[in-house]
Amino acid sequence: MSYIVGFGEIMLRLSSIDNERLFQSLKLNATFGGVEANICVLASILGLNSRYITMLPDNAIGHKVEELLLSHKVDTSAIAWGGKRLGIYFVDKGNNYRTSNIIYDREHSSISEASIKDFDWDKVFDNASYFHVSGVTPALTQSAADLTLYAVKEAKKRNIKVSCDINHRKKLWKYGKKIEDIMPEIVKYSDIVFANEYDAIKILGVESDINVDSNISDEDYKIIMDKLISKYSLEIVITTRREIINSNHNNISALLYNNKNLYKSKKYNITNIVDRIGTGDSFAAGILSGLNMFKDYQYILEFATAAFCIKHTIPGDWNLTTKEEVISLMESSKKLDVKR
Amino acid sequence: MSYIVGFGEIMLRLSSIDNERLFQSLKLNATFGGVEANICVLASILGLNSRYITMLPDNAIGHKVEELLLSHKVDTSAIAWGGKRLGIYFVDKGNNYRTSNIIYDREHSSISEASIKDFDWDKVFDNASYFHVSGVTPALTQSAADLTLYAVKEAKKRNIKVSCDINHRKKLWKYGKKIEDIMPEIVKYSDIVFANEYDAIKILGVESDINVDSNISDEDYKIIMDKLISKYSLEIVITTRREIINSNHNNISALLYNNKNLYKSKKYNITNIVDRIGTGDSFAAGILSGLNMFKDYQYILEFATAAFCIKHTIPGDWNLTTKEEVISLMESSKKLDVKR
Amino acid sequence: MSYIVGFGEIMLRLSSIDNERLFQSLKLNATFGGVEANICVLASILGLNSRYITMLPDNAIGHKVEELLLSHKVDTSAIAWGGKRLGIYFVDKGNNYRTSNIIYDREHSSISEASIKDFDWDKVFDNASYFHVSGVTPALTQSAADLTLYAVKEAKKRNIKVSCDINHRKKLWKYGKKIEDIMPEIVKYSDIVFANEYDAIKILGVESDINVDSNISDEDYKIIMDKLISKYSLEIVITTRREIINSNHNNISALLYNNKNLYKSKKYNITNIVDRIGTGDSFAAGILSGLNMFKDYQYILEFATAAFCIKHTIPGDWNLTTKEEVISLMESSKKLDVKR
Amino acid sequence: MSYIVGFGEIMLRLSSIDNERLFQSLKLNATFGGVEANICVLASILGLNSRYITMLPDNAIGHKVEELLLSHKVDTSAIAWGGKRLGIYFVDKGNNYRTSNIIYDREHSSISEASIKDFDWDKVFDNASYFHVSGVTPALTQSAADLTLYAVKEAKKRNIKVSCDINHRKKLWKYGKKIEDIMPEIVKYSDIVFANEYDAIKILGVESDINVDSNISDEDYKIIMDKLISKYSLEIVITTRREIINSNHNNISALLYNNKNLYKSKKYNITNIVDRIGTGDSFAAGILSGLNMFKDYQYILEFATAAFCIKHTIPGDWNLTTKEEVISLMESSKKLDVKR
Amino acid sequence: MSYIVGFGEIMLRLSSIDNERLFQSLKLNATFGGVEANICVLASILGLNSRYITMLPDNAIGHKVEELLLSHKVDTSAIAWGGKRLGIYFVDKGNNYRTSNIIYDREHSSISEASIKDFDWDKVFDNASYFHVSGVTPALTQSAADLTLYAVKEAKKRNIKVSCDINHRKKLWKYGKKIEDIMPEIVKYSDIVFANEYDAIKILGVESDINVDSNISDEDYKIIMDKLISKYSLEIVITTRREIINSNHNNISALLYNNKNLYKSKKYNITNIVDRIGTGDSFAAGILSGLNMFKDYQYILEFATAAFCIKHTIPGDWNLTTKEEVISLMESSKKLDVKR
Amino acid sequence: MSYIVGFGEIMLRLSSIDNERLFQSLKLNATFGGVEANICVLASILGLNSRYITMLPDNAIGHKVEELLLSHKVDTSAIAWGGKRLGIYFVDKGNNYRTSNIIYDREHSSISEASIKDFDWDKVFDNASYFHVSGVTPALTQSAADLTLYAVKEAKKRNIKVSCDINHRKKLWKYGKKIEDIMPEIVKYSDIVFANEYDAIKILGVESDINVDSNISDEDYKIIMDKLISKYSLEIVITTRREIINSNHNNISALLYNNKNLYKSKKYNITNIVDRIGTGDSFAAGILSGLNMFKDYQYILEFATAAFCIKHTIPGDWNLTTKEEVISLMESSKKLDVKR
Repeated sequence: MSYIVGFGEIMLRLSSIDNERLFQSLKLNATFGGVEANICVLASILGLNSRYITMLPDNAIGHKVEELLLSHKVDTSAIAWGGKRLGIYFVDKGNNYRTSNIIYDREHSSISEASIKDFDWDKVFDNASYFHVSGVTPALTQSAADLTLYAVKEAKKRNIKVSCDINHRKKLWKYGKKIEDIMPEIVKYSDIVFANEYDAIKILGVESDINVDSNISDEDYKIIMDKLISKYSLEIVITTRREIINSNHNNISALLYNNKNLYKSKKYNITNIVDRIGTGDSFAAGILSGLNMFKDYQYILEFATAAFCIKHTIPGDWNLTTKEEVISLMESSKKLDVKR
Repeated sequence: MSYIVGFGEIMLRLSSIDNERLFQSLKLNATFGGVEANICVLASILGLNSRYITMLPDNAIGHKVEELLLSHKVDTSAIAWGGKRLGIYFVDKGNNYRTSNIIYDREHSSISEASIKDFDWDKVFDNASYFHVSGVTPALTQSAADLTLYAVKEAKKRNIKVSCDINHRKKLWKYGKKIEDIMPEIVKYSDIVFANEYDAIKILGVESDINVDSNISDEDYKIIMDKLISKYSLEIVITTRREIINSNHNNISALLYNNKNLYKSKKYNITNIVDRIGTGDSFAAGILSGLNMFKDYQYILEFATAAFCIKHTIPGDWNLTTKEEVISLMESSKKLDVKR
Repeated sequence: MSYIVGFGEIMLRLSSIDNERLFQSLKLNATFGGVEANICVLASILGLNSRYITMLPDNAIGHKVEELLLSHKVDTSAIAWGGKRLGIYFVDKGNNYRTSNIIYDREHSSISEASIKDFDWDKVFDNASYFHVSGVTPALTQSAADLTLYAVKEAKKRNIKVSCDINHRKKLWKYGKKIEDIMPEIVKYSDIVFANEYDAIKILGVESDINVDSNISDEDYKIIMDKLISKYSLEIVITTRREIINSNHNNISALLYNNKNLYKSKKYNITNIVDRIGTGDSFAAGILSGLNMFKDYQYILEFATAAFCIKHTIPGDWNLTTKEEVISLMESSKKLDVKR
Repeated sequence: MSYIVGFGEIMLRLSSIDNERLFQSLKLNATFGGVEANICVLASILGLNSRYITMLPDNAIGHKVEELLLSHKVDTSAIAWGGKRLGIYFVDKGNNYRTSNIIYDREHSSISEASIKDFDWDKVFDNASYFHVSGVTPALTQSAADLTLYAVKEAKKRNIKVSCDINHRKKLWKYGKKIEDIMPEIVKYSDIVFANEYDAIKILGVESDINVDSNISDEDYKIIMDKLISKYSLEIVITTRREIINSNHNNISALLYNNKNLYKSKKYNITNIVDRIGTGDSFAAGILSGLNMFKDYQYILEFATAAFCIKHTIPGDWNLTTKEEVISLMESSKKLDVKR
Repeated sequence: MSYIVGFGEIMLRLSSIDNERLFQSLKLNATFGGVEANICVLASILGLNSRYITMLPDNAIGHKVEELLLSHKVDTSAIAWGGKRLGIYFVDKGNNYRTSNIIYDREHSSISEASIKDFDWDKVFDNASYFHVSGVTPALTQSAADLTLYAVKEAKKRNIKVSCDINHRKKLWKYGKKIEDIMPEIVKYSDIVFANEYDAIKILGVESDINVDSNISDEDYKIIMDKLISKYSLEIVITTRREIINSNHNNISALLYNNKNLYKSKKYNITNIVDRIGTGDSFAAGILSGLNMFKDYQYILEFATAAFCIKHTIPGDWNLTTKEEVISLMESSKKLDVKR
Repeated sequence: MSYIVGFGEIMLRLSSIDNERLFQSLKLNATFGGVEANICVLASILGLNSRYITMLPDNAIGHKVEELLLSHKVDTSAIAWGGKRLGIYFVDKGNNYRTSNIIYDREHSSISEASIKDFDWDKVFDNASYFHVSGVTPALTQSAADLTLYAVKEAKKRNIKVSCDINHRKKLWKYGKKIEDIMPEIVKYSDIVFANEYDAIKILGVESDINVDSNISDEDYKIIMDKLISKYSLEIVITTRREIINSNHNNISALLYNNKNLYKSKKYNITNIVDRIGTGDSFAAGILSGLNMFKDYQYILEFATAAFCIKHTIPGDWNLTTKEEVISLMESSKKLDVKR
C-alpha cells in the first residue's frame, strides 16, 4: 500500500494541568505535535500507511518523538537526525470568554535550520501517493521555506499528489518574508489545497472584490474557488468553517469544491471542547485518508468532518480515535449514550 | 428499621484521568461499582438501612470493596467470600460527540461463578423490606441467572417486596441465553419493575403494536404498562427518560405508574455532565428509599429524579450526596449559587 | 503613584481535585484568598499599586501568604504579624444542578482577634488613594467590626476615598450582631458602595416598598439608589447581576449609578464556569482600578465587567489575567479563537 | 468479644506531596489521625474489636472521619457530635538531615472544648476490656484534662484496664498547666504505662539520680521502672527506643517490664523511612492487641515491635497492615523478597 | 540482522502511587510487563532486533500493548490476536521491612488459553537467532505448557538457540502440574539456562547432596552446574545472586558457567531501590544481547549485570536505559555525579 | 542594608515526576533555577538583601520568573527585559547507580545574547556589597563572556567585593573558547573564589605537579591555594568536597582557606538525596551570607556547609529553608526527630 507523506516541524507541547493558566501551578503536561505529524498519526490510525519527514535532535527528546510516532505505526525511517533542538510551544488554554494563547519557543529548531542535503529524498518519497505540506514550515526561516519548495517540486516531479494547507499563523513569519511571498509558489505545485476565501484572495492572489470579512454565499464561494483552481490548476479545494460561541463552544462544518461541484458537510455543535488544537489537522488527515479509501466526495467530506469533530474531545495534538468511531459519528451523531 | 437488600456484582472500575482517553496516559482512577451496590450505598446515604449481597475474592481487592461499603454503613455481613477474582470494567469516558465506551473484564468473577450454597439465606433476608435485583446479574452466566432466580423466589416466599431493574446491557448475555429468556421469569416474582415500553414489549412479552422506536404518548405508555402490570401482577412500574444532546449534555426525567395513575417528574437539563454511570441506579435507590420514607407517589418520583440528576455531577459509581441536597434540589432547582 | 489599600481576612482555601466532592479522594488543592486580598492582587496585576492589610500568624502558613502576595507585587509592609492561626475555608465545588458549598473554619483567626493597636496606621494609609473594606470582616467578631469601623473613619479623616462592598455572607454573623446593625455605620464613611437593591433596603435602611425579590425595572433601581446615595452622601453605587442557569452556566452583567446616570454593562453568557469564587472581587478590583486609570464611567464599568467575566475561567480566588486580556475582551468578545 | 476503647483527638492532617516542603507546590495530601484513633484502627485491623471516643463537628469533615473509621470497622457509636471544628495539623516532612516539623492548628477543636455531659459513658465503656488515653489530650485544654481524668476514673470504677501513653508533645501544654501537673494523677488510675526513664523521673516523679540524658544500662532501667511501678501500682511498663541516624534512617526497638522481668525486642534498622508519624501508636496498638491475643510477654513485645516497624513503611497516621504481615516480620525479618 | 524472539505473557500491571499501599488512595499507575516482553524491549533498546510472541485480546487494552511494544521497535507482526482478556497483576510495593506483594489476576488470559494453531510459526521464527522462554508461561495452564514445549521443539528443529529462564513463581502452578513435572522437558531443548543451584537440584533433577539452603562455595556451584550441563547438554548456565538487606536495599551480582569456566561479576550495593520487578529479565536480556554483540564471557556477564543493576532504578517492568548507560556503568561504577 | 548581587542565567527546569525517567510519563515538574539566581534566593531567605541581574524575555514565562523571585524578596528592578527566550534545561534524575543527566536547551536565550547597553549599571550595583558571578555564564557565548568580564571590572571599579565560582560545566563551552581562556581574566577581578585544586591548576594556571586526580593532603591543598591566592591577589578560596557513594548517597564537606589558615567543616553523610542540583549554589550563598552576618571563618564555613547539606533534602533549584534550620543543623546534627 502506498504512503501518505507529511513534511514539517513537530514540537514539544507544554500545557498546564486541569483548567489552570500556564505556570499557575508548576505541573505541566507534555505532548508532542505539529501540523503534518498530526496528520500522519491520524492517517495511520485510520488504517493507512504514513511517513513523517522532519529533522530531530539526536537526544532523549528527539528519541521520545520517534518512540511516539512509532507507537502509531508512522514510518520514521526517512527522518533526518541532527541540529540543535526540538521546537517547543506552550499552550495557555482558554475557557469561556478567555482565549487560548500559544507561546512559541521554536526558533533554531533542528528542522528550521535543516537543508536539502540533510534528507535522503528517495527514502522520503518511496512508494508515496500523497505529499502534504503546510504554510507553517515556510513561516519559520528562509531555509525552511526553500526546503518546502524543493520538496513539493521534487514530489511533483515524481508524480506524487501534493496537498497543501495554507495554515496562516500570524505569530510566525518573522524572518522577513510574508506569507503571500511564499505560499503561491508552493501552491503552484499542489493538487489539493486547504484554504478559505480569505486565503484565496489575500494570500494566493485571486482577484475578486467579494467582501471576505463576513460570511459569504455559496455562489460567491464558488466564484472565488473557481478562480483559485484555475489559477493554480488545482484538483480540489477544501475549506473548514468554525463559528466560535466561546472557547468551549464552537460550531464546525466544512466545504469541498471539485470540478464545479460544491459539497457541504453537516454541522456539529460542540459545547464542551476538550482541546481545539490539531482539529484542523484532523480534518486534513480525514480528507487525505478519505481520498485513499473512498470515492464519493460527499462521503469523504463527511468522514473528514467527523474526524475533525472528534478531535475536539481528545487532549493533545493527536486524534486518538479509530476509523470505526469516525464512521459511527458520520453515520449517526445521535447514538451518543454509553456503550455497554 | 428494616433493610433494603441488593444482590449482584460489584466491580473495580478503571478510568483515565482528566479528559484523556483510556490509557492515553498511564495514570488511572480506580473506583468500585455495580448496579445493586450503587443502590445500597445511596439508600444508606439517604438514611436507610441497606445490605449488599455478592461474593468477593478473599484478597486485598475484595477487602477494599468491603472497606468502602462499610464506610457508607452498608451491611456487609452476608457477603460470601471466595471465588477467583473481582470483575473489572474499564471506562473510556466520552465527551461532546464522542461516546463513552465500556470494556468489560468480568468473566470468571467470583459472583458469576457462585452458587446457592455459598450464601446464608437467612442472613441475606434478615429483617429485609425490599430485595432488589437487576438484569445485569443474570446476563453473566447460567449460574448467576439461576442464583438470581433462586433469590427472588426466596424473597417472595419470605414476603419481602421484590424490585427488579431490567437494565439491558448489550455487551453481556454471551453465555447462550437471551435477556427475553430469563427476565420474564424473574419479573414474575417482582412487585416493582424499572422498565420502559421497549423492555415491556421486546423483553417482557407485552403484546402491542405501538411503535416503541420513537417517542410515545402518555396514553400509549399507559396502555403498555397496564398490560405489563396485569401480566405480571406488579404494583409499580417506573421508567426513566433520557434525551441525549451530546455526551456532556442530557435532559432527564422519569415516570411512575401505579394503580392506573401516571406520575411525571420535572425535567432536568444537564449541560456539563461529570459522570453518567450509575445515574439510573441513583434513580432506583431514590425510588426504593422514597417508598420507605414518603407516601406520596409524586413526591417519591421527584425525590428519585432529583437523586438521579445529582449523580450526573459526581465522579464514580456512587452518588455521594445527602438527603438534604436531594430534597433541596427537588424543592427548588433554582437556588444554585454558592452556599456561603 | 498612589495605592489602593484593602483590609480584611485572607484564608487558606482547600478544595478537592478534578470534579470530586470535598474529601472524595484525599488530595486537595490549596490556594489562598479573601475578598480584599483578591482585590489587591488584581489591582496590582492590572498595573496599579496596591497594599493589603491583615494580621497573619508568624508561621510557615502566614509566610506563604506573604510570599504569594509579594509574587504579585502587593505591598505587604503594613501587615501585622501575630495571633493564633490563618482562617481556612473548604470548597465543595458544585456542578450542574449541584451547588457549591463552603465550610468555614475561620474562627479564632489572627485577624478576627486583632485590635487597633496591632497596626501602624500611618504605614497602612501611606500614599493611599482608595481604601476598600467589605461586609465580610465585620461579620467575624465584634473586634473585627470595631477594627473595620476604626479603619474607615481613619481613612476618611485622611481624605482617602473609602469603598465598601456589602458582601452579605449568611454563614457568618454568628457573634450576636446582624449585618444591618453594623454595615450602615461603615457605609456612612464610604464614597463608593457595591450593593444591590436588596442590600439598600434590607441592610442599609433605604425606605421603599418596591418588591426586591424579583427583577426590578431600571426606574425602580434608580429610585432606590438615589435614596441610598442621598442617605449616605455616596458618590457611586455599583451592582452586579447574576442569572444562574446552573452551577456551570451563569449570565452576568453590572450596573453603575453616579450623579443620576445609570450605566449598564454588556452581558456575558458563561457556559462552562471554572471557578465562581472571587468573581465579585474581580469586579470590584476592576472598578477601583478603572477609576484610577480611566475617566469614562461606561468604559470603567465595561472594564470591570470584563475582569468579572474572565475570573470565571480561572481556578483559585485570584484573577490571574492581564490588563491586555481584560481590554481585549471588553472591546470584542467575539475574537476567541486560539492566538497563534 | 470485648473492646479496646481509645479516647482522644483525631485531626485532619495536611502534608505536601512527593518530597516537597509544606506549601512548596499547592497540592496537599489529606489524611486523618490522632494517637488514640491510630491505635483503635490498628487494633481493629489486627482482628480485635475497637471503639473510638471523641467529639466530631457535625459537618462534611466530621462525617468523613466517621466514614474512614467505619471503613476499618472501628465502632463509632459512642462518638459525640458537636463543637466548632476538627483540629488540623500540618506536616512539613523532613529528609536526611532535615527534621520533620509539625504545625498544629488544633485550638478550639470540638474535643478540646467538650465536657463530661457530652458523652454517654455507658456506651463508651460497654463491654470494654481496655481503655487507652495519652498525654496528648490533657495537653490541649483544662477541660480536656478534666475529661481525661474523669474518663480514666470512670474506667477504673468499671474494672476496665487503663492504659496510658505519656506521649510528651512539647508544642502543646500552652493553657497554663505543665505535663508534670497532670499526668501523675492520670497514671494513678492506670495499669499499663508507656513511658521511658525520662518520663518516669521528670514527669511522673520517680526519684532517682540516674542520668537519663544518655543511654542507660538495663540495671538502671529496672531500678527506675521498679520505682515507677510501685509508686503507681502498675502492672506493666513499656518503653520504645529510637536511634535517629537521620530523618530517613532510624533504628528501633522496645522494652517491656513486668513483675521484675525485663523483655527486650529485636532491633530493626530502617533505612528508607516512609512515614514516622504514628509509629509509636502502632507499637501501643500492638501491645494492647497482643495482650488480648497472646500470653507470652516476649511474644507480645516482638509482635508490637514488628507492628511498630511496619508503620514506618506506610504513609499516613494509620498502619494499613495485616496481622499476617506483622507475624511474618516478627518470625523472620529476612524473607523480604517480592512475594509472587 | 537476526532476531531475539521472546514468547510468553504480557500483563497490565497496576500499582499504587507514591509509597502508598495498593488501593490506599484510588489512583493507580498502569504499566505493562511480563518476563519475555521485558527481555524483548531491553534487547531492542540495546540495539538488537527483537520479536515478541503472545496472544493479545483485540480491544483497546491489547492495542495499547502493541503501541508500547512498537514504540520500542519490538516486532509485533507475529503476535496472535484473540481470546478473552489481557492478564493483570497488582503490585503492592514494599519498603524497608515490608515485602512487595503481587496479586495475580491473570486466569483466562488470551495467551493462557491459546493453542498451537493460533500462531504462524514461520513468522514467529523468521530470521531468529535466539528463542527465549521462561518457567512462567508453563505455570499458567496445561495448554500454555504444551504451547511452550511445542515452541521450543520447533525452535530447536529450526536450529535456533533456545534460552530458558526457570523463573519459579510460587503463586502460579495451580492447574495440577508442578514445576518439576514440566521444566525438565523444556530444558532438554535449551542451550542456555538461567538457573541457580536450588533450581538445578529441586526442579531440574540434578542429583547432589550439597545443601542449597545456605550460601554455597564456588566449587560446589561448579559441581552442580557441571551435572546440570551434562544432564541436558547445555552450553551455558547463568545464575543471579541477590542479598536482601531490606526491600529498598539489595546487593546483586551474577555468575556465568561455560565450558568448565566460572565467571563472576562485580557486586552492586543498591540502597534505594526504585523498582525490583523485571530486574532478572533485564539481566537475561543483557546476556542474550551480549551474546549477540560481544565475544568475551566476562564482558558479557558484566554487561548483563550492569543492565540488571540499572533496572532497579527505573519504575515499571521495562528497563528504559541505553547501551551507553550500561557500558558506562560496567566500566566505572564510580562516576555517578550529575552529567552537565 | 547592602545587597548581594548575582548576575547570570536563570532557566526553566523541566523534570519528570516521581522516580520516572525524563518523558517516561508525560507529566513534568517545572521549576526555575540557575547558579546565581539560586544564590540570591537563598541569601534573601537567610535574611539578607539580594538583587538578581539577568535578561528575561517579555512573555508569560519571563514574568513567571520575576513573580517567583519577588516571592522570595529578591530585588528584580535591575533585570533587563527582552531577547528571544528563556533557556530551558531538562533533568533526567538518577538513582542509585544511575547518574542524573542534564539536557541543556539554552542556546539563544535572552541573557546569552544580551549586551552591555541592555543594563542600567548604576541600578545593578546600587548599594551592593558583594557581586557574584560563575563560570557558567561565560560558557554560553562570547557576548555573555564579554558581559561577565565587563560586570566584574565595573564592580571592582565601584569597590564592591567580587565573588566567583568556577563551576565547570563540560556540556557548555561550545562557542570556541575554553574555560581556561576566560576564567583567569575574571578571577583577576575577584576577591573570593570557589575552586578546588583541579580548577586551580587546570583552569586558573597554578603551576604545580601535585596529582589532583586523587585525594590530596591538607598540606598539598594549602600549597596550591597559596599559589592561587597570590597569583590573583585573592582574599578567600573555598572548596567543596563530595564523595559519591551512589546517586542517592553522597558525603559532603567543605574547606575555606584564608590568610594561611585552613578551616575544615564537619562532614555530612547524606543517604537519601532528594535533589542534588543547586547544592553548590546553596553553599556559595551560605558563604556570602555568612560573610555578611558572622565574623568567625569556622562558623561561616559550618553555616554554609549546613545550608549545602539541607539543599540535598529539597526538590528544585532553590533552598527553601530558613536561617533557623541552618543554624540548628550546624549546631547539632543529631536532633533530627519530628518536631511536635
